Amino acid sequence: MSDLPKRVEFHEEGPREGFQIEPRVYPLEQRAALVEALAETGLKAVQVASFVSPKAVPQMTDSEALFAAIRRRPGVRYEAVWLNEQGFERARATPGVDLAGKISLYASDAFARRNNNCSAEEMRGRVLRWLDLYAEAGLKVERALVMAAFGCNFEGEIPPARAVDELVWAHRTCAERGIVLPKVYLADTMGWANPQSVRRLVGMLREALPATRIGLHLHDTRGLGAANVLAALEMGVDLFDSSIAGLGGCPFAGHGDSRGAGNICTEDMVFLCHEMGIETGLDLEKLIEAARLAERIIGRPLGGHVMHAGSLAKYRARAGAAAGHG
Amino acid sequence: MSDLPKRVEFHEEGPREGFQIEPRVYPLEQRAALVEALAETGLKAVQVASFVSPKAVPQMTDSEALFAAIRRRPGVRYEAVWLNEQGFERARATPGVDLAGKISLYASDAFARRNNNCSAEEMRGRVLRWLDLYAEAGLKVERALVMAAFGCNFEGEIPPARAVDELVWAHRTCAERGIVLPKVYLADTMGWANPQSVRRLVGMLREALPATRIGLHLHDTRGLGAANVLAALEMGVDLFDSSIAGLGGCPFAGHGDSRGAGNICTEDMVFLCHEMGIETGLDLEKLIEAARLAERIIGRPLGGHVMHAGSLAKYRARAGAAAGHG
Repeated sequence: MSDLPKRVEFHEEGPREGFQIEPRVYPLEQRAALVEALAETGLKAVQVASFVSPKAVPQMTDSEALFAAIRRRPGVRYEAVWLNEQGFERARATPGVDLAGKISLYASDAFARRNNNCSAEEMRGRVLRWLDLYAEAGLKVERALVMAAFGCNFEGEIPPARAVDELVWAHRTCAERGIVLPKVYLADTMGWANPQSVRRLVGMLREALPATRIGLHLHDTRGLGAANVLAALEMGVDLFDSSIAGLGGCPFAGHGDSRGAGNICTEDMVFLCHEMGIETGLDLEKLIEAARLAERIIGRPLGGHVMHAGSLAKYRARAGAAAGHG
Repeated sequence: MSDLPKRVEFHEEGPREGFQIEPRVYPLEQRAALVEALAETGLKAVQVASFVSPKAVPQMTDSEALFAAIRRRPGVRYEAVWLNEQGFERARATPGVDLAGKISLYASDAFARRNNNCSAEEMRGRVLRWLDLYAEAGLKVERALVMAAFGCNFEGEIPPARAVDELVWAHRTCAERGIVLPKVYLADTMGWANPQSVRRLVGMLREALPATRIGLHLHDTRGLGAANVLAALEMGVDLFDSSIAGLGGCPFAGHGDSRGAGNICTEDMVFLCHEMGIETGLDLEKLIEAARLAERIIGRPLGGHVMHAGSLAKYRARAGAAAGHG
C-alpha cells in the first residue's frame, strides 16, 4: 500500500444532495443549521444548494434565501450547483455563493439524454459555451467531471476509454484556451464501479493526464463504496466527493428504490482514512455531530455507520486511562 | 491484485445473528421460511439458531421447534451455536442439527469476562474441555475463532500477536491430540478492523500457520466492512462469515446503538466478488430475494445495499438486448 496519499481532501455535497432527493421541503433554518455544523468540521467547502428549475427540483426553490440565512465561517467556501445558464445567472446574482467553474461531461449517451436532454457529443458543445461564460465572469475552471464513467443503467457497461476520452478532451480544450485544468473527476453516478474498475480507470486516466489531480465522485449504491475508496487510495487518489451521513443519490438515475443510492458517507470515509494514518484535516467527532443533526432533520435513520456506532476515540481514551496512561 | 482467490466461500449467519439481536420474537414459520429461502441460494451451510440460556437470549428459546419446522434441502448443512455444555447437549439431542466442532478464544481479557465470564487464559481451559466433549461425541473439530482480534471496546487496541497466539495455541493443542485444525478465524467482534490491520494480522497468521485456511468474521460497525473484505481478498482470504441483508450484531459488544453493528452483508459481498470475477457458487438474485424476505419479516429497512438497488443483471440484459446481442 505504498501509493497511499498522506492527506486526502473531501468535498462535502450532503446538503445539496440530501435535501434534493427528499420528497419533503425542510425548513430553511434547519438546512442552514446543517451547513453551519459542517462548516465547523474543518471542511474547506460545502455544497449548499442548486439553482435549478423549481419545476424539476421544487426542494431547491429558495436557494437564494438559504444562502442569505447561513452564518458564514471565514475560510469556508459555500458552493452551489447549476445546470443551465439561467441557473448560473441566479447563482452569480446571489450574495454568499462562492462560484467555482465546473464542467460536466457524459460517458453515456443514454444517460446524457435522460439527465441533460442531449447526447454526450452535444454536451461537449455545451461545455464550450460554459467555458465562454466562465471566462466572461472571470471565473477559473476548477474541475471537469465525467458522469456514468463506470457503467450506466440505460446503456450497460461503459468502456473505460470513453470516460478518459471525455476528460482528455476537456483538458485539451481548456489548454487551447490557455487554461490549466487542475482536477478531473470520475463519477460513478449509478453505482457500477468495483475496486478493479476503479484501479483500471484511474490508472488509464493518470497515464493520459499525468499532471492532473484525479478525484472520484462515488455512490454507495451497491455497498462497495468503502472498497472503491480503498482501491482509489491505493492508486494515490486524494480527492473525493462525499455526503455527510451518506445523504443523497441522483433522482434521475433510474433506481427502483432510492434508499441504497446515496453518496459515499463523509464521516465513515474520514474514519477509514484516519484509521489508516491518512490525514484529512477534519474533526471526526464534529462530523459525527453534523451527521446526527442531519438524521434529526430528515427524521429517519440515515445510512452512515460511525454516526451510529461512534468513533473509537472514547474506547481508546478509556483503555488508556485504565492502563494508567490517562 | 494477483493474490485474489478464484473462489470464495461465505458462511451464512443471518438467521441466528439477526433474530438474536432483535427485541421481538418472530413467528416460527417466518424464521423457518428465511432459512429455507437461504438454502435455495447455493449456500452449503446456514446457521439457524443458538442453544443458549432462555434467560440470556429469550429469542432463541424454541430452537428445537425451529429445526423441526424447517423443510430441509439435501446438501445443505443446518448449523447451530452453543456456548456451554448444556447448550451442546440440547443441540445434540435436536434432530436436524448438523453439528460442527467449533472452538472460540479471546484476544481480549476484558471482553472474555463480559461475554463469557472468564479470562482469556481460562477460556483456553474451557477449550480443552470442548475438545474432550467433541471427541466423545465423535465430532470433527472444524474451526477455531478468536474474538476481539482487532480491538476491543473494553480494552482498546489489541496487539496483533495476541490473536495469533491464541490460534497458534489452538492449532498446537489440536495437533497434540492428533487433530488437524482445518480453519482459523479472526473475528472483528466490535468493529475495530481497518484494511491495514486486516492485512497485517492475516499476514502474521499465515506466517504462523502456513497450511491452515484463514477465515474472517467481520462486522460492518463503522462502515469499513467492504474495504476490509477487499483487503482480505487481496491477501488471498477465501472464507467469510456474513449475514443476509447485513442482519446481526453482538448484543453484548457495548455499542450504544446497535443499528450500525451488523455483520458484513452476504449479498453485497457476493456482488463484490462476482464483479471482481471471483466465484462464490451462490445465486445473487436468490440472495436478494432472501434479503427482501428478511426485511419483510423484521419489518423495517435493513442495511443491505444490493437488496434495495438491485444487481446489475437487468441493466446488462437490457443493454445487451438494445445492442442486438440479446
